[in-house]
Amino acid sequence: MKPLALTMGDPAGIGGELTLHAWHSLRGNGPCFVALDDPRRLAALASDVPIVEIASSEAARAVFPNALPVLPIALAEPARPGHPGKANARAVLASIERAAALCLSGETAGMVTNPINKAALYDAGFAYPGHTEFLAALTGAYGRQIMMLASPDLRVVPVTVHASLRNSIAMLTTEAIVAAAHTTAAALQRDFGIPHPRLAVAGLNPHAGEQGALGDEETTIIGPAIAALREAGIEVSGPWPPDTMFTAAARTRYDAAICMYHDQALIPLKTLDMHHGVNVTLGLPIVRTSPDHGTAYDIAGKGIAVPSSLIAAIELAARLASRRDG
Amino acid sequence: MKPLALTMGDPAGIGGELTLHAWHSLRGNGPCFVALDDPRRLAALASDVPIVEIASSEAARAVFPNALPVLPIALAEPARPGHPGKANARAVLASIERAAALCLSGETAGMVTNPINKAALYDAGFAYPGHTEFLAALTGAYGRQIMMLASPDLRVVPVTVHASLRNSIAMLTTEAIVAAAHTTAAALQRDFGIPHPRLAVAGLNPHAGEQGALGDEETTIIGPAIAALREAGIEVSGPWPPDTMFTAAARTRYDAAICMYHDQALIPLKTLDMHHGVNVTLGLPIVRTSPDHGTAYDIAGKGIAVPSSLIAAIELAARLASRRDG
Repeated sequence: MKPLALTMGDPAGIGGELTLHAWHSLRGNGPCFVALDDPRRLAALASDVPIVEIASSEAARAVFPNALPVLPIALAEPARPGHPGKANARAVLASIERAAALCLSGETAGMVTNPINKAALYDAGFAYPGHTEFLAALTGAYGRQIMMLASPDLRVVPVTVHASLRNSIAMLTTEAIVAAAHTTAAALQRDFGIPHPRLAVAGLNPHAGEQGALGDEETTIIGPAIAALREAGIEVSGPWPPDTMFTAAARTRYDAAICMYHDQALIPLKTLDMHHGVNVTLGLPIVRTSPDHGTAYDIAGKGIAVPSSLIAAIELAARLASRRDG
Repeated sequence: MKPLALTMGDPAGIGGELTLHAWHSLRGNGPCFVALDDPRRLAALASDVPIVEIASSEAARAVFPNALPVLPIALAEPARPGHPGKANARAVLASIERAAALCLSGETAGMVTNPINKAALYDAGFAYPGHTEFLAALTGAYGRQIMMLASPDLRVVPVTVHASLRNSIAMLTTEAIVAAAHTTAAALQRDFGIPHPRLAVAGLNPHAGEQGALGDEETTIIGPAIAALREAGIEVSGPWPPDTMFTAAARTRYDAAICMYHDQALIPLKTLDMHHGVNVTLGLPIVRTSPDHGTAYDIAGKGIAVPSSLIAAIELAARLASRRDG
């Protein structure tokens, strides 16, 4: 399989040290990846990791067992862990743009992104609500991107994501639930190797509304979405009471949970497993994963950042890409 | 210690069989309890459990190792598991009223309630949003009752409870958060034996609002509550991003989480431990716990209901009562 492209992320965050950890952990048995990063800043983070600049991703596989292959993207000024700045914003974006282009052209099998900080990018022309929307635009899929969080225990897809809880409720529509569920079912089949995916749709309200006593969105918005999905041949159940649908017993009954808002999805996922959650973007023409944490400026450069989520993201990207390939 | 009072709950639900299971499990080492129930309906559920009618709770301790002591409350018609009816509503309420009276008079050390079904009780004059409010009224504490859910891993206190998610947001006030936190801190000290309780207050919005980008309730409502609590000498932290505050590492940093809505509290609790969650009512002059499940009509009478939550509720009530006593 072709290598994966791993982006730089915010050079003031923990991305660089995680990249080095991931190479240590994966150099023996892979999957192979190429970092789209500034070789000098990586070398400054850990002098014991041999770094080899390559000119094309084709060279990555030969290099990978013995050194971290890097497609160089120069920073405008040296990175200072924990101290974000605007000068390097253009390089951060270039790393993402190049990774997307390599995936679209088929030179890399998929991409994994280190965390960025949107605030530091706005001055450099970044005009998207987040990383995921930027990638959707770069790959011609804007509006079709769907976020999944996947861990060994649970897969969740929040229908509304980065909005206040109040606005998330206001934004919830039958159409959005149907679209998220279709995209999820298709991805579970094509990329996750599940021939007949089973989806569980959460209610919005306590006890899934208790027959209308505790809210009516289950009847007016979620119920019609479930009916439409059934009609389309999707195996779907719900609306489930949100508090009991993530227990060990309940989780055996579905392959992914379609959730109504960010924390309904993220609380159970992170409560069960803080360190192996992976963010997967569904609905793109390319494979893209990322760790489910942020830049962590407070611990950047201290050598204590836990690389397990980035490593899980690389491993999952490789599995998804190989299924899509095959 | 004096015995605990265990109510009947809905006689068409799983309460009766759980009571019999709990006696089997606890008869050897206690804690001792007396059932406020109809002896004939309990006998009909399990002929192998010896049942002894007693006239006063004082007799319970002598009976308990060898038989289930029952303070009789007659049903109006035989109970039919899985088939709720209105005829027995008066007996269901009488069981709760008697348990509260026994606790107030000091004849029992605390009370544990089996699940009820409000809909079946409204015709009999029940006029409360739920079990907890009814008990608060019976014990002269209406308006001060606070629900805590406690499991071996986590204690959570939802500030808003049985309302739609939309209304829960609308109902959230600084005063309600402050009141819940004060009641929680006092209960942790007096009943849970924690001299210096640490409270963690959740945000409402994703990422706790991300400095206002994803909602402002953290600034306008929750932040002021935290400031007021600190001023009052309560050890309190927050507002925390809801999705990362229930991880194993985060849970070591607090004794109870003050949550903004039902599922923010109940999802992590039930995801971590479906079977040992206990509902504890704080703010009452008496000790009251209950299992954190409902009447489960669908499995009532089938002998498959899991008694672990009721047993945990009885054990916790005994611990709380003994601390309050001492």
